[in-house]
Amino acid sequence: MAQDLTRLSIIEAAGLVKQRKLSPVELVRAHLDRIERLNPKLNAFITVMGDSALREARKAEREVQQGKYRGPLHGIPVSLKDLYWTKGVRTTAGSKIMADFVPTEDCTVVSRFKKAGAVIVGKNHLHEFAIGGTGINPHYPTARNPWDLERITGGSSSGSGAAIASGMTLASMGSDTGGSIRIPAALCGVVGLKATYGRVSKYGVVTLSWSLDHAGPLTRTVADTAAVLRAIAGYDPKDPSTARVRVPDYLAALRGDLRGLRVGLPRDHFFNDVDPEVSQAVHRAVAVLGELGCSVQEVSLPSFRFSAATGTSIAMAEAIAFHEPWLRDRPQDYGADVRDRLEAAMVLTATQYVKAQQLRRVMQREMQAALAQVDVIVSPTCPGTAPLIKKPMVKIGDREQSAASVIGVLTRPCDYTGTPAVSVPCGFDSRGLPIGLQIMGRAWDEATVLKAAHAYEQATEWHQRWPSEPA
Amino acid sequence: MAQDLTRLSIIEAAGLVKQRKLSPVELVRAHLDRIERLNPKLNAFITVMGDSALREARKAEREVQQGKYRGPLHGIPVSLKDLYWTKGVRTTAGSKIMADFVPTEDCTVVSRFKKAGAVIVGKNHLHEFAIGGTGINPHYPTARNPWDLERITGGSSSGSGAAIASGMTLASMGSDTGGSIRIPAALCGVVGLKATYGRVSKYGVVTLSWSLDHAGPLTRTVADTAAVLRAIAGYDPKDPSTARVRVPDYLAALRGDLRGLRVGLPRDHFFNDVDPEVSQAVHRAVAVLGELGCSVQEVSLPSFRFSAATGTSIAMAEAIAFHEPWLRDRPQDYGADVRDRLEAAMVLTATQYVKAQQLRRVMQREMQAALAQVDVIVSPTCPGTAPLIKKPMVKIGDREQSAASVIGVLTRPCDYTGTPAVSVPCGFDSRGLPIGLQIMGRAWDEATVLKAAHAYEQATEWHQRWPSEPA
Repeated sequence: MAQDLTRLSIIEAAGLVKQRKLSPVELVRAHLDRIERLNPKLNAFITVMGDSALREARKAEREVQQGKYRGPLHGIPVSLKDLYWTKGVRTTAGSKIMADFVPTEDCTVVSRFKKAGAVIVGKNHLHEFAIGGTGINPHYPTARNPWDLERITGGSSSGSGAAIASGMTLASMGSDTGGSIRIPAALCGVVGLKATYGRVSKYGVVTLSWSLDHAGPLTRTVADTAAVLRAIAGYDPKDPSTARVRVPDYLAALRGDLRGLRVGLPRDHFFNDVDPEVSQAVHRAVAVLGELGCSVQEVSLPSFRFSAATGTSIAMAEAIAFHEPWLRDRPQDYGADVRDRLEAAMVLTATQYVKAQQLRRVMQREMQAALAQVDVIVSPTCPGTAPLIKKPMVKIGDREQSAASVIGVLTRPCDYTGTPAVSVPCGFDSRGLPIGLQIMGRAWDEATVLKAAHAYEQATEWHQRWPSEPA
Repeated sequence: MAQDLTRLSIIEAAGLVKQRKLSPVELVRAHLDRIERLNPKLNAFITVMGDSALREARKAEREVQQGKYRGPLHGIPVSLKDLYWTKGVRTTAGSKIMADFVPTEDCTVVSRFKKAGAVIVGKNHLHEFAIGGTGINPHYPTARNPWDLERITGGSSSGSGAAIASGMTLASMGSDTGGSIRIPAALCGVVGLKATYGRVSKYGVVTLSWSLDHAGPLTRTVADTAAVLRAIAGYDPKDPSTARVRVPDYLAALRGDLRGLRVGLPRDHFFNDVDPEVSQAVHRAVAVLGELGCSVQEVSLPSFRFSAATGTSIAMAEAIAFHEPWLRDRPQDYGADVRDRLEAAMVLTATQYVKAQQLRRVMQREMQAALAQVDVIVSPTCPGTAPLIKKPMVKIGDREQSAASVIGVLTRPCDYTGTPAVSVPCGFDSRGLPIGLQIMGRAWDEATVLKAAHAYEQATEWHQRWPSEPA
């Protein structure tokens, strides 16, 4: 039975909990058992919160029995990238520097999870301070990809990807500054959503880059993401970057078909340097969208080819505003890759930063113009599939490129524009590694992005495949 | 007759033009005559556009005769700080570097002026590249204050202040990055409005700082400012910083009394280091507002004391993105003060800029919180009255401080917050120099700011005083 329970989606489990056919305690225990068994092989969790999770699960069970059902997250086991503040539970940010940091307060997402009845089972592995897309971390054993233990999960929400793909938890909150939710979603074959900038509170989420950071979930299905987003989204007086914009019922928005939806296929940047197997999978997905009634047309996004340099200037300059004291006092406590990136940014001039922000405005206008012609834009999420941990290079046809350099080239654009983007599984390469389809939409219109992703998912079988259990 | 015509307000002149009691040609000719006579003493204009102005005036006259009346700016002589692009007419930005620059296109404000029937009579003096609050310019004879020719007009819209105060034109467009509209308005005894960031298009206005620049008018009365704002405000597809926000009828909004209006008086920063004569005049103005039915309460804006350093980092870093090639290739063509400020900013780090923008967010939240308790906030516009050209120091009681350093300390805050602020005359010091009252309001709510300023103006006599004619 325990094995079966970890294969349920949130929506399936929620139905059973609501009808009192499944106890939150059973459900949470099944996931904790699976974490206990698999985590030593996958390193998806830095901290497991077994005792408090069971306590919360029992409370959730009592509430259901008393007729106080809180909604689709009631009694659902969820986890958090280890940079979400959890009161009384250490929050390492994947670093040595914050290894002993214990927040005295919950972040807003955790407060909202608790209000929705969700049960937090632990804190997930991440790239040190979320500064990197591979998830390779010198301070904590590197998270391993459930589809091939020799490969990375992608980062920086590395443990979130591994935890969802292996059924250790039903939702994991990641954060996305250059693709850090969508990259592990793509490389692990699960769903990952970066909502509109300002949609989800970042209060109590350790910062990387204030103008680029986004908080968002990874789950196994699009409907599960819709349920989680509904619970956590919305204005938060504690986070001035959040906006007073209505939060729709994202689950209700999944209904109906895609007839008449206009899908844009970028002429520039998004297919330029992509592995042919990935490109083919995405084009097959576009054909499926066509069969579902979408019209497909080309769109032009030429300025996004400058996005790598732009992103580094903005993200790293903003990161230093936070890291400066540590860089001065204990530089040796950083991993080499993160320290190199931060130190390089200390000599960035204000004018370089300003020019990067100006270029970002150009990109925002370009995205807005493209999304005036179409309802969503699709592309690969990553240019290739999961690289080896020992040799983190992305295969692009016959060539290989450094994963650190290229893994985020297709995800960064929507961090600059602030517009929503989801990664949804769209197949496997010849080595059996998952491929992600990225669906991008208009600001505040996560509903359409999720509706397109859900219809595509339901028309295909990819989300029903599971990796074989690690030996 | 010519003398009388230059004493009319826009509203008065417009009434006569509409009723065909005054020809636009007569009106424009009267102002051109006055420019010809006074400009050699006041240096308010860098370029006078006499021929084209008379041509436009004749066209305006024909239209009125044909029954095609365009509204309150029809046939009204207006001028522009010499950084607004005018097709075929040199636009120097007060610099040697752009001394021969002739735009091939009008800026959006000029297009809108022309559509409203206004007649452009010339281009006004300014601080070099608008980088400075004194208006002292090594490349063009410094504009002189009509109330005392030995004194500055304030900058950077120095010529605009002198032109309006001396009756050479009925409206002049200035620009405001740290106070450059409101400072000369205060020091010359006229009205100057910086509207909400994004309200007025800056397309074709030579940039200083993209995130701080605001375009806006100087006029003799608040109603005149309302008429000009109505004509020039609104979304412009050519300027992505403009917003799709409805433009109300600002003239209609002036009607009614001030009963129930809540006026905030800042406890912090805005009265800290102000000349007693200025402070007294502003407190007398607050008493008048009380008599008009306003309630007055204290508000707290403590973070604005950091605004000088914040502003320099942001404005100058952004300025360099524009000036960099010239700073490299022809540094000797800058005046010493402007070159020093720009060169100092070249070594600003990206992180310093980021921290300044973060502090700016704190200021924005503080202003928003204060304006949730009150409808408008009042303060002095400048800490003192007009300094001497030979010795540009601001008198603050018994002490003197460098005008370059302190002239903008009370105006900068609303450039950082992007919220609207007007300067309206509120008296004279013992040397007969004008004092400005600053009225600040909520984002997009210029209507309330103008209504309060108008009611105050109409309850007092200050706007009816004229400087004596230069010998």
